[in-house]
Amino acid sequence: MSALDERLARVALNWLTEPGDPRVARLVEDLGAVRVHEHLLAERDVHGLHTDVAARLEGFDVHRHLDEAEKTGARFVVPGEEEWPTRLDALRDAPVLNERGGVPVGLWVRGPLDLAGLTRSVAVVGSRSATTYGTQVAAEIAHAVARAGSAVVSGAALGIDQAAHRGALAGNGATVAVLACGVDRIYPAANRALVEHVLDVGAVVSEAAPGREPTRIRFLSRNRVIAALSEVTVVAEAALRSGALSTATWCERLNRPLLGVPGPVTSAQSQGVHERLRLGRAHLVTCGEDVLEYVGRPGEHLTDARHGETIPRDRLPWRQKQVLEAFPAVDVVDAPALARAAGIGIREVQGALLRLGAHGWVVQEGEGWRLGRHG
Amino acid sequence: MSALDERLARVALNWLTEPGDPRVARLVEDLGAVRVHEHLLAERDVHGLHTDVAARLEGFDVHRHLDEAEKTGARFVVPGEEEWPTRLDALRDAPVLNERGGVPVGLWVRGPLDLAGLTRSVAVVGSRSATTYGTQVAAEIAHAVARAGSAVVSGAALGIDQAAHRGALAGNGATVAVLACGVDRIYPAANRALVEHVLDVGAVVSEAAPGREPTRIRFLSRNRVIAALSEVTVVAEAALRSGALSTATWCERLNRPLLGVPGPVTSAQSQGVHERLRLGRAHLVTCGEDVLEYVGRPGEHLTDARHGETIPRDRLPWRQKQVLEAFPAVDVVDAPALARAAGIGIREVQGALLRLGAHGWVVQEGEGWRLGRHG
Repeated sequence: MSALDERLARVALNWLTEPGDPRVARLVEDLGAVRVHEHLLAERDVHGLHTDVAARLEGFDVHRHLDEAEKTGARFVVPGEEEWPTRLDALRDAPVLNERGGVPVGLWVRGPLDLAGLTRSVAVVGSRSATTYGTQVAAEIAHAVARAGSAVVSGAALGIDQAAHRGALAGNGATVAVLACGVDRIYPAANRALVEHVLDVGAVVSEAAPGREPTRIRFLSRNRVIAALSEVTVVAEAALRSGALSTATWCERLNRPLLGVPGPVTSAQSQGVHERLRLGRAHLVTCGEDVLEYVGRPGEHLTDARHGETIPRDRLPWRQKQVLEAFPAVDVVDAPALARAAGIGIREVQGALLRLGAHGWVVQEGEGWRLGRHG
Repeated sequence: MSALDERLARVALNWLTEPGDPRVARLVEDLGAVRVHEHLLAERDVHGLHTDVAARLEGFDVHRHLDEAEKTGARFVVPGEEEWPTRLDALRDAPVLNERGGVPVGLWVRGPLDLAGLTRSVAVVGSRSATTYGTQVAAEIAHAVARAGSAVVSGAALGIDQAAHRGALAGNGATVAVLACGVDRIYPAANRALVEHVLDVGAVVSEAAPGREPTRIRFLSRNRVIAALSEVTVVAEAALRSGALSTATWCERLNRPLLGVPGPVTSAQSQGVHERLRLGRAHLVTCGEDVLEYVGRPGEHLTDARHGETIPRDRLPWRQKQVLEAFPAVDVVDAPALARAAGIGIREVQGALLRLGAHGWVVQEGEGWRLGRHG
């Protein structure tokens, strides 16, 4: 195999090493992907990186793998490219956690959302086995944050993650699902509809190469990407041993604000959050407005958000508002998709669309609809 | 009326002025009670203190009033006496709040508890209209704190106060009820049994003279005594406009730790607490142990950071754990795939698999392995 350019070398290294292996990140940092790739091909043991990587590299057809991945709609984004979310570069100086660390060699991305546009993004994470209370509050926070223009980043897991993505989608906002498996897979299967919705309007991201299965260590590695993509991390609910606390610790290691939603002290699902709050490692937040105080330029959200100005959309009849809020930010969407997203009947959606269309909130386009000037 | 000694002068001033009138406190501080008393008797207007006090002082038989009060079992405790809780002296330098402030001229006390023995006392306060959750947590905290030897100070109101006293009594601990009315009265009447229990084993205290009715301003004045008698103040539940927050503010003005118990963000009864926590004005506590960390000598009650239970997986040798963590959640996987996922050599993986298999962590299936019962 001949020498590759930086980007292709990164594809090969990404494919054949584990996400978040700090040795790989360090080597690429020091030598560049092309030289690491060449060294490995020459079977030189580079700082203890196992030579079986070299063996696998030898037979690896990077062009074919990249082509196949791109056929599934995935793109590979590497540092220096326009879409690269530079916030990830902060991982360069963050200490290793659970033997994971470093800037990703690259990220696999699917979906229309441009990662470079992820300003003021907010991670909303928490337990899989969340309570009704926790999921409700997480959804409300995600909704408010998304409405204010922040992307909501989470892990597409059951429980809090699911509620966070749903809340953002319901708020017509941007959302990013960071997976522990390849972006061509869906885990858990129960979240298929959700992940597909995110694929439609947001971005599904993974450091793991296409086809990879989720493993425990990949979840830990993935949590680092969630925290690194986000300006702040909100933990909505987490028991004392919840995996969400690893995301919280990554947030701390990146010196970014860690926010915690309190709950009943009698709830095991809030104990992990209370512990961080008690030790002064997290700030207490109770709603989206509280979160927004920590996002963006200092003071930007301090007063306005507190009193919640009325906007024209607020004065729409409830059903029309519901349909409007089910719209994706950019794409054209058809009535059945809106019915699904809003969770209401198709006929009611069609009625609401006609009335919304009459006032310019939405515009018909072929068989579908998109947001109009006022939407 | 002839000149009185300091103690009797204080009885007279206490009886004829309002609890917590900062002008009285200041004058007594500057001139001593005897001279303030003499000045007033001479109808000299002392710094705007109303001369009707002077008129009332003229006909006031301090010996008779003191005798009658003592017949109800009340004693009058003044600064400099053995039972005087010197912690109250900190009120001298605390700024005025709600036009109340200053060191009390004296305190009326009933019950066997010696106020001088109130070391490490903890105020537990909160809303009258508390939730079941709030009263339960307040009672548990008071119980734990009392068991550890701290007196629980509260206001004998319904809701959180009641739960706090009950928790302390259930823990066989010391408790102090600070009333807004005279110590010979019981308000609210519904708390008669509780106050009588406190009278039996603890102390019922008031700055208001015997016979005085509770008024709004006396509640505000009383809250200052609760905070001043206590080393820390715990707010268990408080709505945004709860009177308990005045106790909290007194605690802050005294530069003592203000502690808050979180609750559901959806509960109005926790909003006042969350607001103090959010603004960094209070520390989060979830149980009696957390409270005790703030009481007594530094480090005495230090609780360990809570990590959750150790699980068997934590005790596995590192290499086996690493292999276990490389397993996919559901599927069967072969050793080379595990080696890739774990980023370690195939031979090491095979060794680890045999040991993990021997203890049921993983199970061989055909050519591959899957997670076993313990995995």
